[in-house]
Amino acid sequence: MAYNLLKGKRGIIFGALDANSIAWKTAERIHEEGGKFVLTNAPIALRMGTISELAEKTNSQIIPADATSMMDLENLVDKAVEILGGKIDFVLHSIGMSVNVRRGNPYTHQDYNFTKTGWDVSALSFHRTMSVLYNKDAVSEWGSIVGLTYMAAQRVFPDYNDMADNKAYLESVARSFGYFFGRDKKVRVNTVSQSPTPTTAGSGVKGFDGFLAYADKMSPLGNATALECADYIVTLFSDLTKKVTLQNLFHDGGFSNMGVSTAIMEDFMKNNAPEETVAEKVKKERKK
Amino acid sequence: MAYNLLKGKRGIIFGALDANSIAWKTAERIHEEGGKFVLTNAPIALRMGTISELAEKTNSQIIPADATSMMDLENLVDKAVEILGGKIDFVLHSIGMSVNVRRGNPYTHQDYNFTKTGWDVSALSFHRTMSVLYNKDAVSEWGSIVGLTYMAAQRVFPDYNDMADNKAYLESVARSFGYFFGRDKKVRVNTVSQSPTPTTAGSGVKGFDGFLAYADKMSPLGNATALECADYIVTLFSDLTKKVTLQNLFHDGGFSNMGVSTAIMEDFMKNNAPEETVAEKVKKERKK
Amino acid sequence: MAYNLLKGKRGIIFGALDANSIAWKTAERIHEEGGKFVLTNAPIALRMGTISELAEKTNSQIIPADATSMMDLENLVDKAVEILGGKIDFVLHSIGMSVNVRRGNPYTHQDYNFTKTGWDVSALSFHRTMSVLYNKDAVSEWGSIVGLTYMAAQRVFPDYNDMADNKAYLESVARSFGYFFGRDKKVRVNTVSQSPTPTTAGSGVKGFDGFLAYADKMSPLGNATALECADYIVTLFSDLTKKVTLQNLFHDGGFSNMGVSTAIMEDFMKNNAPEETVAEKVKKERKK
Amino acid sequence: MAYNLLKGKRGIIFGALDANSIAWKTAERIHEEGGKFVLTNAPIALRMGTISELAEKTNSQIIPADATSMMDLENLVDKAVEILGGKIDFVLHSIGMSVNVRRGNPYTHQDYNFTKTGWDVSALSFHRTMSVLYNKDAVSEWGSIVGLTYMAAQRVFPDYNDMADNKAYLESVARSFGYFFGRDKKVRVNTVSQSPTPTTAGSGVKGFDGFLAYADKMSPLGNATALECADYIVTLFSDLTKKVTLQNLFHDGGFSNMGVSTAIMEDFMKNNAPEETVAEKVKKERKK
Repeated sequence: MAYNLLKGKRGIIFGALDANSIAWKTAERIHEEGGKFVLTNAPIALRMGTISELAEKTNSQIIPADATSMMDLENLVDKAVEILGGKIDFVLHSIGMSVNVRRGNPYTHQDYNFTKTGWDVSALSFHRTMSVLYNKDAVSEWGSIVGLTYMAAQRVFPDYNDMADNKAYLESVARSFGYFFGRDKKVRVNTVSQSPTPTTAGSGVKGFDGFLAYADKMSPLGNATALECADYIVTLFSDLTKKVTLQNLFHDGGFSNMGVSTAIMEDFMKNNAPEETVAEKVKKERKK
Repeated sequence: MAYNLLKGKRGIIFGALDANSIAWKTAERIHEEGGKFVLTNAPIALRMGTISELAEKTNSQIIPADATSMMDLENLVDKAVEILGGKIDFVLHSIGMSVNVRRGNPYTHQDYNFTKTGWDVSALSFHRTMSVLYNKDAVSEWGSIVGLTYMAAQRVFPDYNDMADNKAYLESVARSFGYFFGRDKKVRVNTVSQSPTPTTAGSGVKGFDGFLAYADKMSPLGNATALECADYIVTLFSDLTKKVTLQNLFHDGGFSNMGVSTAIMEDFMKNNAPEETVAEKVKKERKK
Repeated sequence: MAYNLLKGKRGIIFGALDANSIAWKTAERIHEEGGKFVLTNAPIALRMGTISELAEKTNSQIIPADATSMMDLENLVDKAVEILGGKIDFVLHSIGMSVNVRRGNPYTHQDYNFTKTGWDVSALSFHRTMSVLYNKDAVSEWGSIVGLTYMAAQRVFPDYNDMADNKAYLESVARSFGYFFGRDKKVRVNTVSQSPTPTTAGSGVKGFDGFLAYADKMSPLGNATALECADYIVTLFSDLTKKVTLQNLFHDGGFSNMGVSTAIMEDFMKNNAPEETVAEKVKKERKK
Repeated sequence: MAYNLLKGKRGIIFGALDANSIAWKTAERIHEEGGKFVLTNAPIALRMGTISELAEKTNSQIIPADATSMMDLENLVDKAVEILGGKIDFVLHSIGMSVNVRRGNPYTHQDYNFTKTGWDVSALSFHRTMSVLYNKDAVSEWGSIVGLTYMAAQRVFPDYNDMADNKAYLESVARSFGYFFGRDKKVRVNTVSQSPTPTTAGSGVKGFDGFLAYADKMSPLGNATALECADYIVTLFSDLTKKVTLQNLFHDGGFSNMGVSTAIMEDFMKNNAPEETVAEKVKKERKK
């Protein structure tokens, strides 16, 4: 179902790798909602993925850009404005990559050159992108910028490794740059903190499958899918959310505000049935 | 502009007092988006307000209900389902009232009977409403319940008085009941934490005018209006936000994540220009 | 080991029921650290408990007070000042009771008279206590007030029932009253959010034993004990924490900032081993 | 006044530049409390500062270390253990520096080489330090690691520039590494988020003087001083806070939980007195 929510809006979408990725689903949904956009990704990711299929389907052009290169980003923004015929209304930043994770380095034994690369690609790239957009005055008033993030920025998920710290930096950049973008250009900046999602990127994380099941059982509404995330991002790009800014928005079926669910506790008890209740212990204690 | 976002959806709207109120604007916007609903308010509020005008405009019926009375709420839900011809898809809870504020009792000198009444009306009523809806199984799968709140639940605004504590309770009820409503009925529950808004209700708070100006200067996008809040609530009632639940969502032009804005600091400095800089002080100190 | 951290300080301790309770351990530790105090509890709790043993051991007097009665609280504060020979330096509020929990009412089917009683006893009592102390000007400059709370105020623990909402209210009262107490009297107010603790009170909660084990496995340092909590409260009553105020302080071995621990995931996997990895699924998907 | 809280404990203190710095005051207080330690700082900071005075006063040795160099950090830890005669019980990380701030680059026009350097020095250095300590197994069970941070990690303070993002990263590192340090070594890791403090480092930030006054007027207890911060850190290094971990602890006179104070609003109203009250406006509106 489509509502014409983004009719006439122009945008840039980073990070659509293949049909499992959130950025891909978002591009499809934006297309359905009447928005037009350019697609971008790092040259290497473009080679690995199948983005040309998406470009064809959504009638979009692809502009390669390494998000750690200011030259590439400047070229991207210039081209996007030219191709789309005007200032940008929405931007989706969906970029994340940890070399330490790929190489199997535990969090406690990082290669700091990898850490730097991961931070540059995953977190600083959001600042770079906004800096180019801001300094070229390339975003329309009441435009909307969204970065994808994950709750490891607030709480510990041991296997998320240095991506946790990168996401914390990214969320801080959203607030910090969001202030200037809001004050000076009337543009809003938010991050969406999505459920663990079975994308090609996510599937590389150790124990990811089990964690998907765990998050699903913890969340009262279950995990949010990539398509549902795309729907949510559409609302953030629409004119109906103009005053939402500097926020980190959880889109996760409720996981983020759970202490523990009944389902998780039931599972836990299968392996951990205590033999004696506390009430019994306390009773004994008091008898002494 | 309308998008048919709520076509065919049925709902209940609490708290539309007059054309300044958020619930009123929301009712109008929902009507434009194709939703139908019943309006409700306490009998006394119905006498004070002009809600019949809204009912006429949106082709809605009014069902009086005191939100502290289970009998009234049960009657409301039964009637709403009957009138609208099916289960409820959305509910807006916009009820708040502090007797201590009305009577001018400072936070440190409350009349606890007033405190109880304010808590019952403003906070417990949200639990009562959800309890009736849940136990009558009156909400559709993927229905959406929203309560209006204010950031005084997290941070101190001295003149907000006992409403701060009531809102903290309300937000907790959203999480607590949201878990059961999500797990058992696939219904989401969230609160929207709105900018200070010049409603008839808000206008009674001491120093409210100045505070509006303060919040506006602090927020990178300025205060959110009642109409913008209505737009935002429309997205939360739509099918595009199905997996957002248990959240407290700030709709405030960015206020909630500001430490201080340049504009507020400039104002402050007009009255507080320090004669000597810290650098100078430190320099002197080190010379000793 | 004792450090004389509270030498010469005077205080009031609410809620020491028996030797398992946090308030009891805190009283013992304060005594060791050189502080003196009066003990108080509701008349009914005094009958059930063994507090006279504690009073003897710590050379303290017991003043019965129903924390929902202003008359009782005024009498308590007057007597405390008289007995201790001067203004109060520290107050521990450790009161919590849900009639709905005791009667086995699920959160979705509350008896609202019980809800009101629970709220009055567990949450409003903190406001009442501070109101009496503030209006009698009975606390010394740089005094310290601590209320005990639990993380259910922020996140959902289904069996915690309406105590979750009561604790949210209590924490809000700490901030709200803390502002006035800080500004006008230089007194700090904080809440301590403690690990689940095997007290007599806690032992009544359904499934509490299993939850203790769960929290212990989730927390990198394991659950905090009642004695460790007492140690922590001693620091908050000491002169070393004068500028900590309006805070909710987690004392929980790290639980509050965990997403999931390795130990919990391992347990979970025993019952939930997925047959096929996401990587495999994604691979298949792409082959289609 | 001293309490022997750290008798026999061994530690490492980073970042004592001169007598205005928090690390300096902390070193003095630890010395008074019976702790012994080595002092460290970057070679260039050692040349600028007066740390030898502190070393003499506290009977400590100075080991120069660039916190971005693994070799330096390894040497530091080895030497510290050797000099102090055993494993480390406490570590204070008080390092922060933004080249962009020094060079006057606004947040929206950063030199990304400076950004990288600032991040490496201010944030990644905390990971490096913990990594060396963890992998050398150089910290005692129930040891305590503290990093100094600032609330710009959560909320926008425009002049704090890229240090905001660095502090967000640092706080995330505290949680992430804190999990492994807790689980594997029973060591706690926390950050202290201190009031703006008139240190030599702070004095370089634009408009810092005015901001000090602003924060002081906002905080119910006023700004926390460097000495008060030192006192607070002493409690975190003591045996009384063993189960506090992964926390970001605000030590700020209550600033972090303030929406607005009466004093700030009064100042604001001097420049912003609205001519007409909202109540009057609403009244007019309704007459139409």
